[in-house]
Amino acid sequence: MLITFEGIDGCGKSTQIEMLNDYLNQKGVRFSVFREPGGTDISEKVRSLLLHETDEMDPVTELLLFSAARSQLIREKVIPLLEHNEIVILDRFYDSTTAYQGFGRNSSSLAEIQTLNKLASHNTVPDITFYLRIDPEVAKKRTEGTGKDRLESAGDEFFKKVATGYDMLASSDSRFRILDATQSPEEIHKQVIQIIGESQQ
Amino acid sequence: MLITFEGIDGCGKSTQIEMLNDYLNQKGVRFSVFREPGGTDISEKVRSLLLHETDEMDPVTELLLFSAARSQLIREKVIPLLEHNEIVILDRFYDSTTAYQGFGRNSSSLAEIQTLNKLASHNTVPDITFYLRIDPEVAKKRTEGTGKDRLESAGDEFFKKVATGYDMLASSDSRFRILDATQSPEEIHKQVIQIIGESQQ
Repeated sequence: MLITFEGIDGCGKSTQIEMLNDYLNQKGVRFSVFREPGGTDISEKVRSLLLHETDEMDPVTELLLFSAARSQLIREKVIPLLEHNEIVILDRFYDSTTAYQGFGRNSSSLAEIQTLNKLASHNTVPDITFYLRIDPEVAKKRTEGTGKDRLESAGDEFFKKVATGYDMLASSDSRFRILDATQSPEEIHKQVIQIIGESQQ
Repeated sequence: MLITFEGIDGCGKSTQIEMLNDYLNQKGVRFSVFREPGGTDISEKVRSLLLHETDEMDPVTELLLFSAARSQLIREKVIPLLEHNEIVILDRFYDSTTAYQGFGRNSSSLAEIQTLNKLASHNTVPDITFYLRIDPEVAKKRTEGTGKDRLESAGDEFFKKVATGYDMLASSDSRFRILDATQSPEEIHKQVIQIIGESQQ
Protein backbone atom coordinates (compact mmCIF):
# COMPACT_ATOMS: atom_id res chain seq x y z
CA MET A 1 0.00 0.00 0.00
CA LEU A 2 1.29 3.41 -1.01
CA ILE A 3 0.14 6.34 1.15
CA THR A 4 1.08 9.91 0.29
CA PHE A 5 0.73 13.13 2.29
CA GLU A 6 0.17 16.40 0.49
CA GLY A 7 -0.51 20.04 1.33
CA ILE A 8 1.12 23.45 1.38
CA ASP A 9 3.98 24.24 3.75
CA GLY A 10 2.67 24.69 7.29
CA CYS A 11 -0.25 22.26 6.85
CA GLY A 12 1.10 19.86 9.48
CA LYS A 13 2.19 17.01 7.20
CA SER A 14 5.39 16.26 9.12
CA THR A 15 3.54 16.02 12.45
CA GLN A 16 1.01 13.62 10.96
CA ILE A 17 3.68 11.44 9.40
CA GLU A 18 5.51 11.27 12.74
CA MET A 19 2.32 10.27 14.55
CA LEU A 20 1.52 7.64 11.93
CA ASN A 21 5.11 6.43 12.15
CA ASP A 22 4.80 5.93 15.93
CA TYR A 23 1.42 4.23 15.54
CA LEU A 24 2.64 1.74 12.93
CA ASN A 25 5.77 1.03 14.97
CA GLN A 26 3.64 0.18 18.00
CA LYS A 27 1.49 -2.07 15.85
CA GLY A 28 4.60 -3.88 14.59
CA VAL A 29 3.68 -3.21 10.96
CA ARG A 30 6.47 -3.22 8.32
CA PHE A 31 6.59 0.17 6.65
CA SER A 32 8.94 2.82 5.24
CA VAL A 33 8.71 6.60 5.10
CA PHE A 34 10.40 8.74 2.45
CA ARG A 35 10.36 12.45 1.85
CA GLU A 36 10.34 13.96 -1.60
CA PRO A 37 12.72 15.01 -3.01
CA GLY A 38 15.17 12.53 -1.43
CA GLY A 39 15.37 9.00 -0.09
CA THR A 40 18.29 7.61 -2.15
CA ASP A 41 21.90 8.77 -2.47
CA ILE A 42 21.26 10.18 -5.93
CA SER A 43 17.95 11.79 -4.93
CA GLU A 44 19.49 13.43 -1.85
CA LYS A 45 22.19 14.98 -4.04
CA VAL A 46 19.48 16.34 -6.32
CA ARG A 47 17.59 17.56 -3.24
CA SER A 48 20.54 19.59 -2.04
CA LEU A 49 20.85 21.16 -5.49
CA LEU A 50 17.15 22.08 -5.38
CA LEU A 51 17.19 23.52 -1.89
CA HIS A 52 20.45 25.41 -1.93
CA GLU A 53 20.81 26.76 -5.44
CA THR A 54 20.33 30.44 -6.11
CA ASP A 55 17.48 32.23 -7.85
CA GLU A 56 19.22 31.51 -11.13
CA MET A 57 17.38 28.19 -11.34
CA ASP A 58 14.88 28.13 -14.20
CA PRO A 59 11.42 26.77 -13.26
CA VAL A 60 11.64 24.02 -15.89
CA THR A 61 15.04 22.97 -14.54
CA GLU A 62 13.47 22.75 -11.08
CA LEU A 63 10.63 20.62 -12.41
CA LEU A 64 13.04 18.23 -14.13
CA LEU A 65 15.26 17.91 -11.06
CA PHE A 66 12.29 17.09 -8.83
CA SER A 67 11.25 14.46 -11.37
CA ALA A 68 14.76 12.98 -11.51
CA ALA A 69 14.90 12.64 -7.71
CA ARG A 70 11.48 11.00 -7.78
CA SER A 71 12.34 8.54 -10.53
CA GLN A 72 15.33 7.25 -8.59
CA LEU A 73 13.40 6.95 -5.30
CA ILE A 74 10.52 5.08 -6.89
CA ARG A 75 12.68 2.65 -8.87
CA GLU A 76 15.33 2.01 -6.22
CA LYS A 77 13.20 1.92 -3.08
CA VAL A 78 9.43 2.26 -3.42
CA ILE A 79 8.69 -0.32 -6.13
CA PRO A 80 10.73 -3.11 -4.44
CA LEU A 81 9.08 -2.38 -1.07
CA LEU A 82 5.57 -2.41 -2.55
CA GLU A 83 6.40 -5.71 -4.27
CA HIS A 84 7.18 -7.11 -0.80
CA ASN A 85 3.78 -5.93 0.40
CA GLU A 86 5.19 -3.28 2.71
CA ILE A 87 3.42 -0.03 3.44
CA VAL A 88 5.22 2.95 1.91
CA ILE A 89 4.50 6.47 3.13
CA LEU A 90 5.62 9.43 1.05
CA ASP A 91 6.01 12.94 2.39
CA ARG A 92 4.97 14.57 -0.92
CA PHE A 93 4.65 12.85 -4.29
CA TYR A 94 3.74 13.95 -7.80
CA ASP A 95 0.71 15.93 -6.68
CA SER A 96 3.25 18.33 -5.17
CA THR A 97 4.80 18.73 -8.60
CA THR A 98 1.44 19.47 -10.16
CA ALA A 99 0.48 21.91 -7.39
CA TYR A 100 3.83 23.69 -6.91
CA GLN A 101 5.40 23.64 -10.37
CA GLY A 102 2.23 23.43 -12.45
CA PHE A 103 -0.21 25.71 -10.62
CA GLY A 104 2.26 27.69 -8.46
CA ARG A 105 5.00 28.50 -10.94
CA ASN A 106 3.22 27.79 -14.23
CA SER A 107 6.54 26.37 -15.33
CA SER A 108 4.85 24.30 -18.02
CA SER A 109 1.49 23.05 -19.19
CA LEU A 110 -0.44 20.57 -17.04
CA ALA A 111 -0.26 18.06 -19.91
CA GLU A 112 3.53 18.24 -19.89
CA ILE A 113 3.59 17.86 -16.12
CA GLN A 114 1.34 14.82 -16.34
CA THR A 115 3.69 13.19 -18.85
CA LEU A 116 6.61 13.94 -16.55
CA ASN A 117 4.79 12.65 -13.47
CA LYS A 118 3.98 9.35 -15.14
CA LEU A 119 7.53 8.97 -16.39
CA ALA A 120 9.15 9.83 -13.04
CA SER A 121 6.78 7.68 -10.99
CA HIS A 122 7.22 4.69 -13.32
CA ASN A 123 3.40 4.65 -13.43
CA THR A 124 3.11 4.11 -9.67
CA VAL A 125 -0.18 5.50 -8.28
CA PRO A 126 -0.91 6.06 -4.54
CA ASP A 127 -3.68 4.05 -2.91
CA ILE A 128 -4.49 6.89 -0.51
CA THR A 129 -3.46 10.53 -0.70
CA PHE A 130 -4.08 12.56 2.45
CA TYR A 131 -4.52 16.21 1.57
CA LEU A 132 -4.12 18.38 4.66
CA ARG A 133 -6.17 21.34 3.61
CA ILE A 134 -5.46 24.74 5.11
CA ASP A 135 -5.89 28.38 4.17
CA PRO A 136 -2.55 29.77 2.92
CA GLU A 137 -2.87 32.74 5.32
CA VAL A 138 -3.23 30.42 8.31
CA ALA A 139 -0.39 28.22 7.13
CA LYS A 140 1.79 31.28 6.72
CA LYS A 141 1.29 32.30 10.34
CA ARG A 142 2.25 28.80 11.44
CA THR A 143 5.57 28.86 9.61
CA GLU A 144 6.52 32.42 10.51
CA GLY A 145 9.82 32.68 12.36
CA THR A 146 11.03 29.25 11.25
CA GLY A 147 14.08 29.02 8.98
CA LYS A 148 12.92 28.76 5.40
CA ASP A 149 14.71 27.29 2.42
CA ARG A 150 14.59 28.64 -1.13
CA LEU A 151 11.33 26.93 -2.00
CA GLU A 152 9.47 27.83 1.17
CA SER A 153 10.29 31.52 0.97
CA ALA A 154 8.25 32.18 -2.19
CA GLY A 155 5.51 34.81 -1.93
CA ASP A 156 1.87 34.73 -0.72
CA GLU A 157 0.48 34.77 -4.24
CA PHE A 158 2.46 31.64 -5.01
CA PHE A 159 1.02 29.68 -2.07
CA LYS A 160 -2.51 30.74 -2.96
CA LYS A 161 -2.05 29.29 -6.44
CA VAL A 162 -0.56 26.09 -4.99
CA ALA A 163 -3.53 25.72 -2.61
CA THR A 164 -5.95 26.18 -5.51
CA GLY A 165 -4.05 23.53 -7.42
CA TYR A 166 -4.36 21.06 -4.55
CA ASP A 167 -8.09 21.79 -4.24
CA MET A 168 -8.61 21.04 -7.93
CA LEU A 169 -6.58 17.85 -7.81
CA ALA A 170 -8.34 16.60 -4.68
CA SER A 171 -11.76 17.11 -6.19
CA SER A 172 -10.87 15.19 -9.34
CA ASP A 173 -9.63 11.84 -8.00
CA SER A 174 -11.11 9.49 -5.41
CA ARG A 175 -7.74 8.49 -3.97
CA PHE A 176 -7.65 11.89 -2.21
CA ARG A 177 -8.90 12.17 1.38
CA ILE A 178 -9.31 15.80 2.32
CA LEU A 179 -8.56 16.49 6.00
CA ASP A 180 -9.22 19.81 7.70
CA ALA A 181 -5.71 20.77 8.80
CA THR A 182 -6.97 23.35 11.33
CA GLN A 183 -8.10 20.53 13.63
CA SER A 184 -5.81 19.38 16.44
CA PRO A 185 -3.02 16.97 15.42
CA GLU A 186 -4.65 14.20 17.54
CA GLU A 187 -7.98 14.69 15.78
CA ILE A 188 -6.38 14.50 12.33
CA HIS A 189 -4.32 11.48 13.35
CA LYS A 190 -7.46 9.61 14.43
CA GLN A 191 -8.99 10.23 10.98
CA VAL A 192 -5.80 9.09 9.21
CA ILE A 193 -5.76 5.81 11.18
CA GLN A 194 -9.44 5.23 10.54
CA ILE A 195 -9.15 5.77 6.77
CA ILE A 196 -6.12 3.47 6.50
CA GLY A 197 -7.92 0.82 8.57
CA GLU A 198 -11.02 0.98 6.39
CA SER A 199 -9.01 0.69 3.20
CA GLN A 200 -7.36 -2.52 4.42
CA GLN A 201 -10.65 -4.30 5.11
CA MET B 1 22.50 30.87 -35.36
CA LEU B 2 22.49 27.66 -33.34
CA ILE B 3 24.86 24.93 -34.57
CA THR B 4 24.95 21.51 -32.91
CA PHE B 5 27.39 18.62 -33.30
CA GLU B 6 26.17 15.06 -32.86
CA GLY B 7 27.52 11.54 -33.18
CA ILE B 8 28.61 8.55 -31.13
CA ASP B 9 31.69 8.67 -28.91
CA GLY B 10 34.83 8.52 -31.03
CA CYS B 11 33.27 10.26 -34.05
CA GLY B 12 35.63 13.24 -33.79
CA LYS B 13 33.16 15.88 -32.60
CA SER B 14 35.58 17.51 -30.17
CA THR B 15 38.28 17.87 -32.83
CA GLN B 16 35.81 19.49 -35.23
CA ILE B 17 34.52 21.89 -32.60
CA GLU B 18 38.09 22.91 -31.75
CA MET B 19 38.87 23.52 -35.42
CA LEU B 20 35.67 25.54 -35.88
CA ASN B 21 36.50 27.44 -32.71
CA ASP B 22 39.93 28.42 -34.08
CA TYR B 23 38.44 29.37 -37.44
CA LEU B 24 35.76 31.62 -35.97
CA ASN B 25 38.30 33.21 -33.63
CA GLN B 26 40.52 34.08 -36.60
CA LYS B 27 37.52 35.54 -38.42
CA GLY B 28 36.72 37.69 -35.37
CA VAL B 29 33.16 36.33 -35.20
CA ARG B 30 31.29 36.48 -31.86
CA PHE B 31 30.40 32.95 -30.79
CA SER B 32 30.14 30.64 -27.78
CA VAL B 33 30.68 26.91 -27.39
CA PHE B 34 28.95 24.76 -24.77
CA ARG B 35 29.08 21.06 -24.08
CA GLU B 36 26.08 19.08 -22.95
CA PRO B 37 25.48 18.30 -20.17
CA GLY B 38 27.10 21.41 -18.63
CA GLY B 39 27.72 25.08 -19.33
CA THR B 40 26.18 26.69 -16.22
CA ASP B 41 26.92 26.23 -12.51
CA ILE B 42 23.76 24.21 -12.02
CA SER B 43 24.25 22.16 -15.19
CA GLU B 44 27.86 21.33 -14.28
CA LYS B 45 26.71 20.03 -10.90
CA VAL B 46 24.15 17.84 -12.67
CA ARG B 47 26.88 16.74 -15.10
CA SER B 48 29.11 15.53 -12.31
CA LEU B 49 26.19 13.56 -10.86
CA LEU B 50 25.62 11.96 -14.27
CA LEU B 51 29.24 11.10 -14.95
CA HIS B 52 30.31 9.89 -11.54
CA GLU B 53 27.31 8.12 -10.09
CA THR B 54 27.30 4.35 -9.84
CA ASP B 55 25.30 1.81 -11.83
CA GLU B 56 22.45 2.37 -9.40
CA MET B 57 21.16 5.19 -11.58
CA ASP B 58 17.85 4.35 -13.22
CA PRO B 59 17.68 5.13 -16.98
CA VAL B 60 14.70 7.45 -16.49
CA THR B 61 16.59 9.34 -13.77
CA GLU B 62 19.46 9.75 -16.20
CA LEU B 63 17.12 11.06 -18.88
CA LEU B 64 15.59 13.61 -16.48
CA LEU B 65 18.97 14.81 -15.21
CA PHE B 66 20.23 15.35 -18.76
CA SER B 67 17.08 17.32 -19.47
CA ALA B 68 17.47 19.42 -16.31
CA ALA B 69 21.06 20.34 -17.23
CA ARG B 70 19.88 21.25 -20.71
CA SER B 71 16.99 23.39 -19.54
CA GLN B 72 19.29 25.52 -17.40
CA LEU B 73 21.91 25.92 -20.13
CA ILE B 74 19.36 26.94 -22.75
CA ARG B 75 17.52 29.42 -20.53
CA GLU B 76 20.53 30.96 -18.81
CA LYS B 77 23.03 31.09 -21.68
CA VAL B 78 21.88 29.98 -25.12
CA ILE B 79 18.63 31.94 -25.50
CA PRO B 80 20.17 35.28 -24.40
CA LEU B 81 23.14 34.75 -26.77
CA LEU B 82 20.90 33.90 -29.72
CA GLU B 83 18.81 36.99 -28.97
CA HIS B 84 22.02 39.03 -29.33
CA ASN B 85 22.62 37.41 -32.75
CA GLU B 86 25.65 35.46 -31.61
CA ILE B 87 26.58 32.06 -33.00
CA VAL B 88 26.12 29.31 -30.43
CA ILE B 89 27.80 25.93 -30.92
CA LEU B 90 26.64 22.97 -28.85
CA ASP B 91 28.68 19.82 -28.31
CA ARG B 92 25.60 17.56 -28.19
CA PHE B 93 21.96 18.67 -27.86
CA TYR B 94 18.63 16.89 -27.63
CA ASP B 95 19.38 14.57 -30.52
CA SER B 96 21.88 12.94 -28.14
CA THR B 97 19.04 12.33 -25.71
CA THR B 98 16.90 10.74 -28.40
CA ALA B 99 19.80 8.61 -29.68
CA TYR B 100 21.38 7.61 -26.35
CA GLN B 101 18.44 7.42 -23.96
CA GLY B 102 15.68 6.71 -26.45
CA PHE B 103 17.30 4.32 -28.92
CA GLY B 104 20.30 3.18 -26.85
CA ARG B 105 18.72 2.55 -23.47
CA ASN B 106 15.04 2.39 -24.41
CA SER B 107 14.49 4.25 -21.15
CA SER B 108 11.14 5.54 -22.36
CA SER B 109 9.02 5.95 -25.45
CA LEU B 110 10.14 8.30 -28.20
CA ALA B 111 6.97 10.34 -27.66
CA GLU B 112 7.90 10.90 -24.02
CA ILE B 113 11.43 11.83 -25.01
CA GLN B 114 10.12 14.31 -27.57
CA THR B 115 7.95 15.97 -24.92
CA LEU B 116 10.96 16.15 -22.61
CA ASN B 117 13.23 17.51 -25.34
CA LYS B 118 10.80 20.30 -26.18
CA LEU B 119 10.37 21.18 -22.53
CA ALA B 120 14.10 21.14 -21.74
CA SER B 121 15.09 23.09 -24.85
CA HIS B 122 12.40 25.73 -24.27
CA ASN B 123 11.40 25.01 -27.89
CA THR B 124 14.80 26.04 -29.22
CA VAL B 125 15.64 24.28 -32.52
CA PRO B 126 19.13 24.15 -34.11
CA ASP B 127 19.66 25.81 -37.49
CA ILE B 128 22.30 23.25 -38.48
CA THR B 129 23.06 19.89 -36.89
CA PHE B 130 26.32 18.28 -38.00
CA TYR B 131 26.07 14.52 -37.65
CA LEU B 132 29.53 12.95 -37.76
CA ARG B 133 28.62 9.53 -39.01
CA ILE B 134 30.86 6.59 -38.21
CA ASP B 135 30.56 2.83 -37.84
CA PRO B 136 30.42 1.94 -34.11
CA GLU B 137 33.22 -0.65 -34.61
CA VAL B 138 35.54 1.98 -36.09
CA ALA B 139 34.64 4.49 -33.39
CA LYS B 140 35.36 1.86 -30.75
CA LYS B 141 38.90 1.32 -32.05
CA ARG B 142 39.48 5.08 -31.94
CA THR B 143 38.50 5.38 -28.28
CA GLU B 144 40.28 2.23 -27.09
CA GLY B 145 42.84 2.88 -24.40
CA THR B 146 41.41 6.29 -23.45
CA GLY B 147 39.94 6.75 -19.99
CA LYS B 148 36.20 6.24 -20.16
CA ASP B 149 33.50 7.58 -17.88
CA ARG B 150 30.35 5.72 -16.86
CA LEU B 151 28.43 6.63 -20.01
CA GLU B 152 31.21 5.87 -22.47
CA SER B 153 31.91 2.40 -21.08
CA ALA B 154 28.55 0.92 -22.12
CA GLY B 155 28.68 -2.14 -24.41
CA ASP B 156 28.94 -2.59 -28.21
CA GLU B 157 25.27 -3.42 -28.61
CA PHE B 158 24.40 -0.10 -26.99
CA PHE B 159 26.48 1.96 -29.41
CA LYS B 160 25.02 0.12 -32.38
CA LYS B 161 21.54 1.10 -31.24
CA VAL B 162 22.65 4.71 -30.68
CA ALA B 163 24.15 4.86 -34.19
CA THR B 164 20.92 3.50 -35.66
CA GLY B 165 19.01 6.15 -33.74
CA TYR B 166 21.20 8.93 -35.16
CA ASP B 167 20.78 7.56 -38.69
CA MET B 168 17.00 7.62 -38.33
CA LEU B 169 16.97 11.13 -36.89
CA ALA B 170 19.30 12.46 -39.58
CA SER B 171 17.16 11.08 -42.38
CA SER B 172 13.98 12.65 -40.98
CA ASP B 173 14.92 16.33 -40.64
CA SER B 174 16.59 18.71 -43.10
CA ARG B 175 18.54 20.56 -40.41
CA PHE B 176 20.90 17.53 -40.28
CA ARG B 177 24.09 17.57 -42.39
CA ILE B 178 25.59 14.11 -42.48
CA LEU B 179 29.39 14.13 -42.63
CA ASP B 180 31.52 11.04 -43.21
CA ALA B 181 33.56 10.93 -40.01
CA THR B 182 36.18 8.58 -41.48
CA GLN B 183 37.55 11.44 -43.59
CA SER B 184 40.53 13.44 -42.32
CA PRO B 185 39.76 16.15 -39.74
CA GLU B 186 40.85 18.81 -42.27
CA GLU B 187 38.50 17.44 -44.91
CA ILE B 188 35.55 17.42 -42.51
CA HIS B 189 36.42 20.92 -41.26
CA LYS B 190 36.34 22.27 -44.82
CA GLN B 191 32.82 20.85 -45.28
CA VAL B 192 31.67 22.31 -41.95
CA ILE B 193 32.92 25.79 -42.92
CA GLN B 194 31.32 25.55 -46.33
CA ILE B 195 27.92 24.52 -44.99
CA ILE B 196 27.91 27.29 -42.37
CA GLY B 197 28.96 29.81 -45.02
CA GLU B 198 26.19 28.75 -47.40
CA SER B 199 23.54 28.92 -44.68
CA GLN B 200 24.46 32.54 -43.91
CA GLN B 201 23.96 33.72 -47.49
